[in-house]
Amino acid sequence: MAHTTYAATRIRGLSVRDIRFPTSLEADGSDAIHPDPDYSCAYVIIYTDTDFKGHGLAFTIGRGNELVVAAVKSLAKVVVGKKLRPIFENFAGTWRELTSESQMRWVGPEKGVLHLAVAAIVNALWDLWARIEHKPLWKLLVDMEPETLVSTIDFRYMEDVLTREEALQMLREMQTGKNNREERMINRGFPAYITSAGWLGYSQEKIERLLKGFISQGWRHFKIKVGQDLEDDKRRCKIVRDVIGEERTLMVDANQKWSVKEAVDWMKELAPYKPRWIEEPTSPDDILGHATIAEALRPLGIKVATGEMCQNRVVFKQLLQAKAIDYCQIDACRLGGVNEVLAVYLMAKKFNVPVCPHAGGVGLCEMVQHLQMWDYICVSGTTKDRIIEYVDHLQEHFKHPRKVVSCHYLAPKIAGYSVEMWEESLMKYEYPYGSEWKKLFSCGKYQDPEASPPPWIEHRTKGKIVYR
Amino acid sequence: MAHTTYAATRIRGLSVRDIRFPTSLEADGSDAIHPDPDYSCAYVIIYTDTDFKGHGLAFTIGRGNELVVAAVKSLAKVVVGKKLRPIFENFAGTWRELTSESQMRWVGPEKGVLHLAVAAIVNALWDLWARIEHKPLWKLLVDMEPETLVSTIDFRYMEDVLTREEALQMLREMQTGKNNREERMINRGFPAYITSAGWLGYSQEKIERLLKGFISQGWRHFKIKVGQDLEDDKRRCKIVRDVIGEERTLMVDANQKWSVKEAVDWMKELAPYKPRWIEEPTSPDDILGHATIAEALRPLGIKVATGEMCQNRVVFKQLLQAKAIDYCQIDACRLGGVNEVLAVYLMAKKFNVPVCPHAGGVGLCEMVQHLQMWDYICVSGTTKDRIIEYVDHLQEHFKHPRKVVSCHYLAPKIAGYSVEMWEESLMKYEYPYGSEWKKLFSCGKYQDPEASPPPWIEHRTKGKIVYR
Repeated sequence: MAHTTYAATRIRGLSVRDIRFPTSLEADGSDAIHPDPDYSCAYVIIYTDTDFKGHGLAFTIGRGNELVVAAVKSLAKVVVGKKLRPIFENFAGTWRELTSESQMRWVGPEKGVLHLAVAAIVNALWDLWARIEHKPLWKLLVDMEPETLVSTIDFRYMEDVLTREEALQMLREMQTGKNNREERMINRGFPAYITSAGWLGYSQEKIERLLKGFISQGWRHFKIKVGQDLEDDKRRCKIVRDVIGEERTLMVDANQKWSVKEAVDWMKELAPYKPRWIEEPTSPDDILGHATIAEALRPLGIKVATGEMCQNRVVFKQLLQAKAIDYCQIDACRLGGVNEVLAVYLMAKKFNVPVCPHAGGVGLCEMVQHLQMWDYICVSGTTKDRIIEYVDHLQEHFKHPRKVVSCHYLAPKIAGYSVEMWEESLMKYEYPYGSEWKKLFSCGKYQDPEASPPPWIEHRTKGKIVYR
Repeated sequence: MAHTTYAATRIRGLSVRDIRFPTSLEADGSDAIHPDPDYSCAYVIIYTDTDFKGHGLAFTIGRGNELVVAAVKSLAKVVVGKKLRPIFENFAGTWRELTSESQMRWVGPEKGVLHLAVAAIVNALWDLWARIEHKPLWKLLVDMEPETLVSTIDFRYMEDVLTREEALQMLREMQTGKNNREERMINRGFPAYITSAGWLGYSQEKIERLLKGFISQGWRHFKIKVGQDLEDDKRRCKIVRDVIGEERTLMVDANQKWSVKEAVDWMKELAPYKPRWIEEPTSPDDILGHATIAEALRPLGIKVATGEMCQNRVVFKQLLQAKAIDYCQIDACRLGGVNEVLAVYLMAKKFNVPVCPHAGGVGLCEMVQHLQMWDYICVSGTTKDRIIEYVDHLQEHFKHPRKVVSCHYLAPKIAGYSVEMWEESLMKYEYPYGSEWKKLFSCGKYQDPEASPPPWIEHRTKGKIVYR
């Protein structure tokens, strides 16, 4: 560990920008619950008194992104002005300071807007650390002594399932064979599955055309959206199964559309199309509901997957305890950044549940590839039943986008966490002042938030009372 | 139902203010996790095209309040401009529109900042409805036909435990005797317990003095904070038990301080002081953890209570399913306003778990008295094992504060939900421009957020790039 390289470095500032892409115009990303997402992110840069910067982001789907941006501003004081040594040498403590700020935690805690903001800051800190060490994040994690890695995790509320000592033990046991596994990642990469063919808004012709194209590229696993209309789901599952054949894998995703009973009934109807898993069958908060669904679907050979909306390690802990999930779909910025994601991987290992990360969105593919490679090399030691989601859009905005070749994510080589975006993209898509947004407002495709009066009445502006 | 009175009324606007009281100066409200709360609220007024206004609020403890205010502004468009008839005649649908705004739900859903904002708006809508009907909220609820009341509830994600039909049945069965129970509430009010003696920051002398004063007023139930230091907790429990004697009730509250095992071990040490319940022993998200704790403490006669941080009905549903709570402590604005609180009361009835609302804070006492009286008259039919928290500060800011006489909350008589604050209080305590805040900044007790540069770097202001 080249700790000396950052010993004297101090964080001199942090910037956060509201970046939004008008993806709803093309129905990209549409599902049963989110018909019109504008893929967005709160984009953070941490500036130091050296040339090193850290980039981090939290993905959202449009409106509400302004709240994550505001929360980052409110939390910035926890890290700005601090030296890197106390941050990284007590990273669990720094993480606790961010997640448990004594007043702000009331509007969380460890969930929603506030936790997304923590993720954006924490992810930027990890990017910074990896850059200082001149390593891609996965390699930084892989090269860490087990003691150092475990020191980044806050075990509060997890100890009934995983203690610090157990985590250490797990990591130590996997030291053997690390080099071989690292080599395999560098040579082959990590297997991926594809979701881009399956959005609800896409036509039958578009689905078939996309699927055939993907099959010709060698893809073997496909996920489609379900939950809006049972007859239409059957029809679309049949189309997909007909195109991909019996030997390839179909997964389905309901994006929280159903009640518990509805999920079971609906999936019984889709069972003939042999989906490997049903993703997000019901409320992301319903641990016991997922357990009921998983038990009911087990005899049909349908597994349950969830996690992209799973708010923190405490809920993942219970999903694992209750045997509610067969696949654990961590999200790189729904959880509070890398530290908490590591904790969830370790718990999943203990329960022998494979992690298949949620990706797509903005920057999620870029981030989760690092985490999954670390898992393979240092935790699970296998790719069996493990696969990373892959969605092929918006990568053009990233300076070093993920490379997916032969349906495998290739191990990133550039130092950092791979989320740095082109300054030009940031300038174009900053909401609402970026040049692309100005165009969209002027052609009437979106409403300029500043062109019409807000729906609320302003009482005061800078100390002066302004009633409308 | 005088629906005709609002048939043509339209919501013309909504205002929201960041109101904060500098309570941390006196250590009021301090506990093991929140050492320095500044009791605050996002304060909403809904304006109509008539003279009727609706007042609502969501309580927070200081920093982070600005995020709830911002979220209210972002959600305002869901109700502003709408007529009251479609809002109240399909209140479950309106509630769903607020909680499931197709893009904003990503930064929730139904939790944290976003759900607090929903609560502030929804509570203002109920206040408005009650005022139009010229009834205090509890009476509006009590006089509603079961069908109307149930029509305000969104049963999504609850149906595996409570269907609309079961809820209706429950309410219909309790129609008998309603008048007698209403009379009892008007004559006697609802029993209360007191927390004001038990904050961690208070000295022994202060605790004893306060307790003796409360006992002389007739109080029989007292709650104190625990969890910071075991020996100190034992000492303080002993002081309280010595002063209140065996015949009065002690409850203890750990405010989420412990892991599951720690909670069990710690409470075994406090068992000799015979606390009736341990409140918030661990993470509010840990349903299975609470179940483990409840099971371990049952033989000791210590019950488990939680709810003030319970994010929504889905988590309450599971706490009830898992037998994780013996007392259900709903919060009037942690849940998404009255509609969702009603749902939780009905589920608690089904599981035969008494509801003892969380109060204190800003306006919580004012709100929960209405809910608890409705529960007594229309749902549970009993005050056995049911009690409302009472904290005697900040009531001076309310136009019609709760009246607690002989340790009972008296039934409110004024139309509405009792949260309207004096305009003078709003002007004084609006953060950061109110006159009291200006004084606090100038005497140096608080830092003026505008006097020092923010910790973040502004990239753009109104379209112009501003780098620092």
